[in-house]
Amino acid sequence: MKIGFVGLGIMGRPMALNILKGGFDLTVWARRAESMAPLLEAGAKGAASPADVAANCDIVVSMVSDAPDVEAVALGAGGVAEGAKPGLIYIDMSTIAPAAAQSIAARLAEKGVTMLDAPVSGGEVGAINAGLTIMVGGEEAAFEKAKAVLACMGKSVNLIGGSGAGQVTKACNQILTGVTVMAVAEAFNFARKSGVDAGKVREALLGGFAYSRILENHGQRMLDRNFKPGFKAWMHQKDMNIVVQEAHRLGLMLPTSAATAQLFNAMVGSGLGEEDSIAALKLLEGLSGG
Amino acid sequence: MKIGFVGLGIMGRPMALNILKGGFDLTVWARRAESMAPLLEAGAKGAASPADVAANCDIVVSMVSDAPDVEAVALGAGGVAEGAKPGLIYIDMSTIAPAAAQSIAARLAEKGVTMLDAPVSGGEVGAINAGLTIMVGGEEAAFEKAKAVLACMGKSVNLIGGSGAGQVTKACNQILTGVTVMAVAEAFNFARKSGVDAGKVREALLGGFAYSRILENHGQRMLDRNFKPGFKAWMHQKDMNIVVQEAHRLGLMLPTSAATAQLFNAMVGSGLGEEDSIAALKLLEGLSGG
Repeated sequence: MKIGFVGLGIMGRPMALNILKGGFDLTVWARRAESMAPLLEAGAKGAASPADVAANCDIVVSMVSDAPDVEAVALGAGGVAEGAKPGLIYIDMSTIAPAAAQSIAARLAEKGVTMLDAPVSGGEVGAINAGLTIMVGGEEAAFEKAKAVLACMGKSVNLIGGSGAGQVTKACNQILTGVTVMAVAEAFNFARKSGVDAGKVREALLGGFAYSRILENHGQRMLDRNFKPGFKAWMHQKDMNIVVQEAHRLGLMLPTSAATAQLFNAMVGSGLGEEDSIAALKLLEGLSGG
Repeated sequence: MKIGFVGLGIMGRPMALNILKGGFDLTVWARRAESMAPLLEAGAKGAASPADVAANCDIVVSMVSDAPDVEAVALGAGGVAEGAKPGLIYIDMSTIAPAAAQSIAARLAEKGVTMLDAPVSGGEVGAINAGLTIMVGGEEAAFEKAKAVLACMGKSVNLIGGSGAGQVTKACNQILTGVTVMAVAEAFNFARKSGVDAGKVREALLGGFAYSRILENHGQRMLDRNFKPGFKAWMHQKDMNIVVQEAHRLGLMLPTSAATAQLFNAMVGSGLGEEDSIAALKLLEGLSGG
C-alpha cells in the first residue's frame, strides 16, 4: 500500500516519519521545499503537488492548519481530487469544523475519493513518539483499510461514527480540556487570593472527584509558573471558535465553553497567544492585582 | 478524649457513628430527638444543647447546613461557647463561606475556643464508609489533637492552612467538580446534537488529557440517564453561590465558575434542584429541542 502525506509542519513531519518507520512506501509534498528535505533524507519520495502525491498513492494523509487549507489540498488546483485514482482514501488529520469536513467529504465522494476526518490530540510530543489519540469519522470500510497507517502515528485509534464524527469528538476534547484548564486556573487564583497555598489545595483534591489529568499535569505546570507550550493559547482559541460556531449553527447553549472561548480571545488580545493555554492563570491574576 | 457531635442529618449521622466505631466516648445533640435516637442506641450519650455537649467534651464537631446554623451552634444561646471548658476544640465540618468561618473562629477565640474549619467531600457514601476527603483550616496544634477523630471519618485528612483554608479548599473543589460537570454535559449535548454517539466520544477521550473522574463516573451516569442524587443540584447551587460571593468580596473574575453558578440557578428554577447536579444535561438538552 502506497501512502502520501501533505503538510510537514510541527505535527505533520514527525507523523510522516512514523509512517515511514512503519515500513510504508511514502510520497510527500509540502509548500516549502525545506519542510520536505528531512523526509526525503529519511527515504520518502518527493512530489510536485497534492495531485502528484495522489496519482502515486492508495491513501493520502494531510495535516494542515485550517479548513481553507484542507479545501485547497483536497479540491483546489493541483489538489488531491485532480490526481486521485478511483478508490483513493483521503485522511485529513487537521482540526477543522465538523460541517467543513462533511462538506469536503461530500464533494470528494462525487469524484470517487473516500474521505476520513481523523483529527488528533496529544500535541507535538504525541506526534513524535507515535502516542497520538486519533478520532475518526467516515465509512467503516475505509477505516479498516486505513487502520494500519493510523496505527503508525497513534496509540488510541477509534472510529467514532460517520463523516464529521472525528471532528465532533475533537471539538468535545477541546471543550473538556479548555474548560478544565480555565476551572483549574480559576480555582488556583481563588485559593491564592484567599491567602491559601494552591499547591496544597491541588494535592488535597487530586484524590477526589475534582481529579482530572489537567489538574494533575497542567496544574503542576501552573504552580511551577512554566507557561512554555505545550499547546499554544491561540491554537486553543481557534479550536474553541470552531465549538462556538458549531453551537451557533446547531442552536446549542454551551455556557462554560463560551466563557472559555472568551478567555482565550482575551489571552490572544493580551499578548499571551504564543504561551501555553495554562497562561490563562496569568490573565486572571492580572485582573485581580497580579 | 471525649468527643461531642452536633447535627445528625444525612451526613452527620454516619459520621458520628464512625467516631463511635473508632472507640471514642461520644455525646450528641440534634434539634430533633428522632435524629439522636440511632446514636443513643449505638452507645452515645445525649445532651440537652450544644452548650451541654461542650461542657462534657474536649472536642465538639458540628455538621449543619449553612453559616447561620454554624453561627447559632457556636455562638448562639445554648451554643458551644456558652458551655465550653478552656481549651475546647470546635470543628465545623459544614460547607460555609471562608469569610464566615474566619469570623466565627475569631469570635470563638475570644472565648477560649479554638476552631478548625473542616468541610468534606465524598457525599453520603463517603460519610457512611469513612471515605471522606477532609480539608482543614486552622492552627496546627489543634489539628494534631483532632487528627485521630477526623481519621475516623475520612481517608484523606489534610491541614491546608490557617483559619478558613479548609473552606477555601472546599470552594475550589466545588469549582472544579461543578465546572467539569457542566463541561461534560455541554460536550455530550454537542456530540448528540451533531449526530454522534456521546458514549463513543467519552470512551475515545478517557485515555487523553480530557480525562477526569467526572467524565468517567458522572459521564457514565449521564449516558445511563441516571439522575438520582448523589449530590443534589440545589446543594451545588448553594456552594457555587459561596464561590460567587467570595469572588465579589475579593474582586476576582471567575468566568466558568460564574457560568456554572448560573446553570445551577437555572436547574433549581426549572425544577431540577432535587436531582443530581448531572441533570444539567437535561437542562441543556431542553434548551436545544430535547
